[in-house]
Amino acid sequence: MRFALGLEYCGNGFYGWQSQAERQTVQDALQFALAQIAGQAIGVICAGRTDAGVHATHQVVHFETDVERPLSAWVRGVNSHLPEGVAVRWAQPVSEEFHARFSARGRRYRYLLINRAQRPGLWQGRVGWFHLPLDLALMQAAADKLIGEHDFSAFRAANCQAKSPIKTLSRADVRQRGNMIIFDFEASAFLHHMVRNLVGTLVAIGKGAQSPEWVDELLLAKDRKLAAPTFSPDGLYFRGPIYEPHWNLPALDDDFLDGVLL
Amino acid sequence: MRFALGLEYCGNGFYGWQSQAERQTVQDALQFALAQIAGQAIGVICAGRTDAGVHATHQVVHFETDVERPLSAWVRGVNSHLPEGVAVRWAQPVSEEFHARFSARGRRYRYLLINRAQRPGLWQGRVGWFHLPLDLALMQAAADKLIGEHDFSAFRAANCQAKSPIKTLSRADVRQRGNMIIFDFEASAFLHHMVRNLVGTLVAIGKGAQSPEWVDELLLAKDRKLAAPTFSPDGLYFRGPIYEPHWNLPALDDDFLDGVLL
Repeated sequence: MRFALGLEYCGNGFYGWQSQAERQTVQDALQFALAQIAGQAIGVICAGRTDAGVHATHQVVHFETDVERPLSAWVRGVNSHLPEGVAVRWAQPVSEEFHARFSARGRRYRYLLINRAQRPGLWQGRVGWFHLPLDLALMQAAADKLIGEHDFSAFRAANCQAKSPIKTLSRADVRQRGNMIIFDFEASAFLHHMVRNLVGTLVAIGKGAQSPEWVDELLLAKDRKLAAPTFSPDGLYFRGPIYEPHWNLPALDDDFLDGVLL
Repeated sequence: MRFALGLEYCGNGFYGWQSQAERQTVQDALQFALAQIAGQAIGVICAGRTDAGVHATHQVVHFETDVERPLSAWVRGVNSHLPEGVAVRWAQPVSEEFHARFSARGRRYRYLLINRAQRPGLWQGRVGWFHLPLDLALMQAAADKLIGEHDFSAFRAANCQAKSPIKTLSRADVRQRGNMIIFDFEASAFLHHMVRNLVGTLVAIGKGAQSPEWVDELLLAKDRKLAAPTFSPDGLYFRGPIYEPHWNLPALDDDFLDGVLL
């Protein structure tokens, strides 16, 4: 049987998603917890690997097992073996054709950036921070230039394993709530560090060091060294994969921390 | 010279506000950082002491010093000596008549409660959790009964040091955003554990174990043992004191995490 699981996690305290021999990762924590329930080793494949410090409101994985358990065991049972900063939200049997990674036709990321003179205290680790004023209109003008199919080599980490640097960005929105700036990105797939590199470049434009046209130059030059430095992982949230409706998987909850604090 | 400071902090990792000999508290962290800037010991008095695990979006303190420093030293300088989970937001000279605690004519608290079957992962430590469905209308009906001047002994911790259990609650609102329930309280002052005890009692009513009229009975009986258990500190945020406008202190930022996530 193949199962899909939806989970959420706080990236602080994990060395990212992918299994590592000597350090705690989300994948290791999940596989350990699944093994406790199954009584046998279970390997998982995720929709989008996240780096150290990056959070997920909705990560999706699939795994195979012959062990029969009630669905609640794959949620509540697994949760009882997971560390505090990770929780399974739902579990569902899926067909053998479903693949958490390859069935995803899109992925969404959000970046939360506090824009104020003082560093974050209460939300440290959960938000990025920039201390100088940022011009929202300039950043949105620059973000608009990212939409569509481009060679994103200028925003690609050196160790990126993607076959091609050409991706299609379908959403790049910048908005502001008080001193919080919210960046929303959606694409078929993302290169390694792509969102953090895009945010770094948009911030450089927002503070006035570059014009929005710089984005055109960077896309053409395809040179990582020309773009801005990679931004902190603290404010980055993987909001989950987008699957075709026929898979019948739970949609993203669009209900979280929506106007709840202050 | 007397100064007022506004700060924010995450309660996780601190044993509450008040100075303790052997454990890290927010007051100790702040006094240590102030001493680094002043070159002499500085004691602070806060608007509202918070318990272990309780957060603050806006705590206010005052202190006395003869040392002259630019205002930025009391913000950025102090921040450079504070641990990650605490940050000074502003500093301002105040008259000798201002007292962070006694000048406050009100205080505000918010409680964030995730109401869903699965425990929190991403926001663990930042939100309370209740796993059974809650009836919002019943909880609001009960909260309405708390408004006004009452003897809140039923919601008072055994070790509460307040002179009187009689307080005036001017706001007790319950609302919902998706699976997050948000409780807002405002009062002249609060008893020890009062908000967490009120939330526990409202949850007992919301799940149907008691009717809203139970609040009337508890207020009359004045017996802590009859009310519901104290709720977790994880979801509790001190939103700051309310001062008369003539003190001219920065108002609360009402801009934080307002519709930013999902």
